Amino acid sequence: MEAPSRTGQSAGTRGAQPIRVCPDFHAAVELIGRRWAGAILWTLEAGPLFFAEIGEAVPGLSDRLLSRRLRELEEAGLVTRTVHGGTPPRVSYELTDMGVELQPAIRELGDWAKRWNVS
Amino acid sequence: MEAPSRTGQSAGTRGAQPIRVCPDFHAAVELIGRRWAGAILWTLEAGPLFFAEIGEAVPGLSDRLLSRRLRELEEAGLVTRTVHGGTPPRVSYELTDMGVELQPAIRELGDWAKRWNVS
Repeated sequence: MEAPSRTGQSAGTRGAQPIRVCPDFHAAVELIGRRWAGAILWTLEAGPLFFAEIGEAVPGLSDRLLSRRLRELEEAGLVTRTVHGGTPPRVSYELTDMGVELQPAIRELGDWAKRWNVS
Repeated sequence: MEAPSRTGQSAGTRGAQPIRVCPDFHAAVELIGRRWAGAILWTLEAGPLFFAEIGEAVPGLSDRLLSRRLRELEEAGLVTRTVHGGTPPRVSYELTDMGVELQPAIRELGDWAKRWNVS
């Protein structure tokens, strides 16, 4: 990312370079920042989970919203969905390569959150 | 963060350890995931900015919402606000230590977003 490093200069004197938020970063933070989306991705870090397992891992998240978020994460390319035979069929979810590569950022954020007691 | 490492086991066979999303992580991602909050933090990475400068750096963000988000980020301890004399007085914003320490996570997320062309 081409964010400039901290310069210590005071406001408004940073020079001629106008600052613009990186559109990729902005899209990414809006995606994983959707209510519960980050939490869902967190639960999948260790490997695939069935729908109900994700629900249990994220207290307070309704099945309806979980279902919607999983669909969005699937559309964004972060998660794949596998239907397992049986009655009723069970559905599991797993991170794609793109989702796996997001994990360092999620871990960094989690470390920071613990360090600063954010909750 | 105590997230388990990827095991490659299939869904539902991960063993006795129940997975629970880390509450600190969840709170953090909900905070920086609020619409535009991540983008605002991104612009402050290089140092303090005046209110109008942040607005210019984040196209599409209204002054009203920028003002609200900055207040929330201030309340969360990520940003400090300084009023400069003059007519009219100008207000600048700067990351606190807590906000500065969030930057590695923001950078990771930005790198990932660029690599995967998220926008």
